[in-house]
Amino acid sequence: MHRPPLRVPSLFLVAVAMLVSPALRSQSRPTLNSERLLQRLNAMAAIGKDPAGGVSRIAYSEADRQGRDFFRNLMRDAGLTVTVDAAGNISGRRAGSDPQLPTLVLGSHIDSVPQGGNFDGIVGSLSALEIAQTLAESRVTLRHPLEILIFQNEEGGLTGSRAVSGELREEELNLPTRSGKTLREGLAFSGGDPTRLVGMRRKPGDIFAYLELHIEQSGSLEVEKINIGVVEGIVGNHRWDVTIEGIANHAGATPMNQRHDALLAAARFIQAVNRVVTSLPGRQVATVGKIQVLPGAYNIVPGRVILGLDVRDLDETRIEVLFGKMHDEAEQIASGSGTKFSFKEIVADLPALTDPRLRQIIADSAKQLNLTTKALPSGATHDAQSIARLAPIGMIFIPSVGGISHAPEEFSQPQDIINGANVLLGSALQLDAQTW
Amino acid sequence: MHRPPLRVPSLFLVAVAMLVSPALRSQSRPTLNSERLLQRLNAMAAIGKDPAGGVSRIAYSEADRQGRDFFRNLMRDAGLTVTVDAAGNISGRRAGSDPQLPTLVLGSHIDSVPQGGNFDGIVGSLSALEIAQTLAESRVTLRHPLEILIFQNEEGGLTGSRAVSGELREEELNLPTRSGKTLREGLAFSGGDPTRLVGMRRKPGDIFAYLELHIEQSGSLEVEKINIGVVEGIVGNHRWDVTIEGIANHAGATPMNQRHDALLAAARFIQAVNRVVTSLPGRQVATVGKIQVLPGAYNIVPGRVILGLDVRDLDETRIEVLFGKMHDEAEQIASGSGTKFSFKEIVADLPALTDPRLRQIIADSAKQLNLTTKALPSGATHDAQSIARLAPIGMIFIPSVGGISHAPEEFSQPQDIINGANVLLGSALQLDAQTW
Repeated sequence: MHRPPLRVPSLFLVAVAMLVSPALRSQSRPTLNSERLLQRLNAMAAIGKDPAGGVSRIAYSEADRQGRDFFRNLMRDAGLTVTVDAAGNISGRRAGSDPQLPTLVLGSHIDSVPQGGNFDGIVGSLSALEIAQTLAESRVTLRHPLEILIFQNEEGGLTGSRAVSGELREEELNLPTRSGKTLREGLAFSGGDPTRLVGMRRKPGDIFAYLELHIEQSGSLEVEKINIGVVEGIVGNHRWDVTIEGIANHAGATPMNQRHDALLAAARFIQAVNRVVTSLPGRQVATVGKIQVLPGAYNIVPGRVILGLDVRDLDETRIEVLFGKMHDEAEQIASGSGTKFSFKEIVADLPALTDPRLRQIIADSAKQLNLTTKALPSGATHDAQSIARLAPIGMIFIPSVGGISHAPEEFSQPQDIINGANVLLGSALQLDAQTW
Repeated sequence: MHRPPLRVPSLFLVAVAMLVSPALRSQSRPTLNSERLLQRLNAMAAIGKDPAGGVSRIAYSEADRQGRDFFRNLMRDAGLTVTVDAAGNISGRRAGSDPQLPTLVLGSHIDSVPQGGNFDGIVGSLSALEIAQTLAESRVTLRHPLEILIFQNEEGGLTGSRAVSGELREEELNLPTRSGKTLREGLAFSGGDPTRLVGMRRKPGDIFAYLELHIEQSGSLEVEKINIGVVEGIVGNHRWDVTIEGIANHAGATPMNQRHDALLAAARFIQAVNRVVTSLPGRQVATVGKIQVLPGAYNIVPGRVILGLDVRDLDETRIEVLFGKMHDEAEQIASGSGTKFSFKEIVADLPALTDPRLRQIIADSAKQLNLTTKALPSGATHDAQSIARLAPIGMIFIPSVGGISHAPEEFSQPQDIINGANVLLGSALQLDAQTW
């Protein structure tokens, strides 16, 4: 046992766990089949492999269907009871020793962005499966029912997990998805049933706790040479469409001092956004990732610009403060340039904090394996944030090489993947011993 | 006579003109039919009137064909000999008293941008026609042959006038035009012949002088309450596609200090362009009128930006100096942001200066009519710049209300139009007396 000395809460938790958890009680912590896990990762990389690079296993596509078939077969081989819910989420269940207890859920996703990587989602999905299979092979039965939950269409907007939490709205079903199908068609294609979405929702209390292992998708763990990230929460995300009205005019005939150039005002605003977000200490981020200029010709002074502003932080109040400052800067730019700014909020996702007890268990599990840890926010969205509406959540990050994600170059070292899976196993075992 | 006192060159020119020009010699300067000119302007506004606002008489469109038919009928009514050349330019000729002399050309265009105004091109075209018709009705024959030349597809890239000057390249014929037709198809649609472009070129010496009346398309005459602009030249115009390479990354997961945001670098460059062009005295202009961001999503830090840079001035050397400074600023931005700038020059049109003798004649003609004048550059392109390759050119500007052009709100006061037509007439009569 590699536990740090004098960490009383950690020792206490393990002691309690040893009293009630069959796996810990026996002192024979089951050992994951690391080789099998890495082999399956390779096998998944071949499904939807994109000739142009990376993996294109876009939700509701043929490649996605093949990946889901493959994964369901693995679940059956692991002795799990496999079902597909109305939203196309794949569930693999294993009974616990106490049928009265709520379910311990380990989840992630296997769909990808176009030309994405082979680690985002897959590492967590295959590790969760590996844990269930290892427990079965070790003949260890947890107290709580165990469920491996593979959410459908994470990359297209957390569709599957929002259906579980009841946030998926009926009107979204008519929207197109990257697959070309509407969401309604996609659900049916995945073996779901768009007419049974209300009935499939989980209720608070159904899920005992939710754990998700994921790649960091950012470079901080790698840069700081930390093994395991203990996620503090998934940041809140507000988005605005910002419209800047100037006056379109002839680029040759309009003197510089008679212009009301919407793109020049936009350029000032983009710099102001960067200045505001970096003016405070902390890990808040703000991005202008898209911009449209009208009429958009070499020889016309831009008359209108529409840009997308995205601001994220774990602290909702801080997002409000930052936006207030950006709005003030916009007013100054507008009055200085004879332009007009208007803001339309189009996304207002609240932060989803992880449960402090789960954070502690994850950190302790890592330390027992002699792994270094760091608490950090998740800037990316995850299915865990939907489940946070129903149950305590915890998330484990492993390093992403170069911080690259959603690209063919996405990569995590095999040892980091194995470390993450072992922390997930240790955390699940400790969680199973809790009696909240 | 309203001439300023003590202007010897002006008095001298008029005295010479009175010796040789029948019109001036008789002291009976023909009087334009102002009412007819304004009525025809209204009639043209109805051809291609756009339900969404303004006039859409796009070259090679059905509306353009109707406008051209209407104009040719007016030319025939004015007793002109009407032909269409291989590029679809409409020519209306009237013989001069000396068949050995080269042609005095008055020109402009009647095609428009989509949802353009009813003054750009039309004012000059109808005024030129009005002058030819007035001379005919007054039984005044000039020494030089007189040609009213209506260039085809001015708005799509000076196609007709560049065919006249021999600058239109064979490979351009396959390019699409705003009409939906290729240029080749457009020429044929206009009654031209894409196989006869070489034969239609004019040679240096064919044209005695070229005069064009046009709206200013900018606000300086109106702001300064000046009646007539004497154009010093059409500015040179250089354009670059500027590509900025950063690194696309996750907008939530990538900390601010680990970004290589191509759009943030572009925003700094857009400001630098503005700073550089306004740092020197003068009338030079620079515009970033279009921008493309890749991949271009709310949640992705921009990885690549392509923007269009347009720089114009009467002085070619100054354009080079300005671009050098912009390029230096780009290098600094690149090194400060971990991005890479590259510049591809896509247009390099040299300035086309007007002839000083024609400038003097225009200024004198205006003063004889008690009109105030101002020398100024044309920031917009005009067919005159093509003809400058072959012959001395002169351009007359009248005020544009609010400086607005290429938009339904484009407007010039009726009195300003009549003033412009009268200055064009006076200038043509004086020019006809010259013996260069």
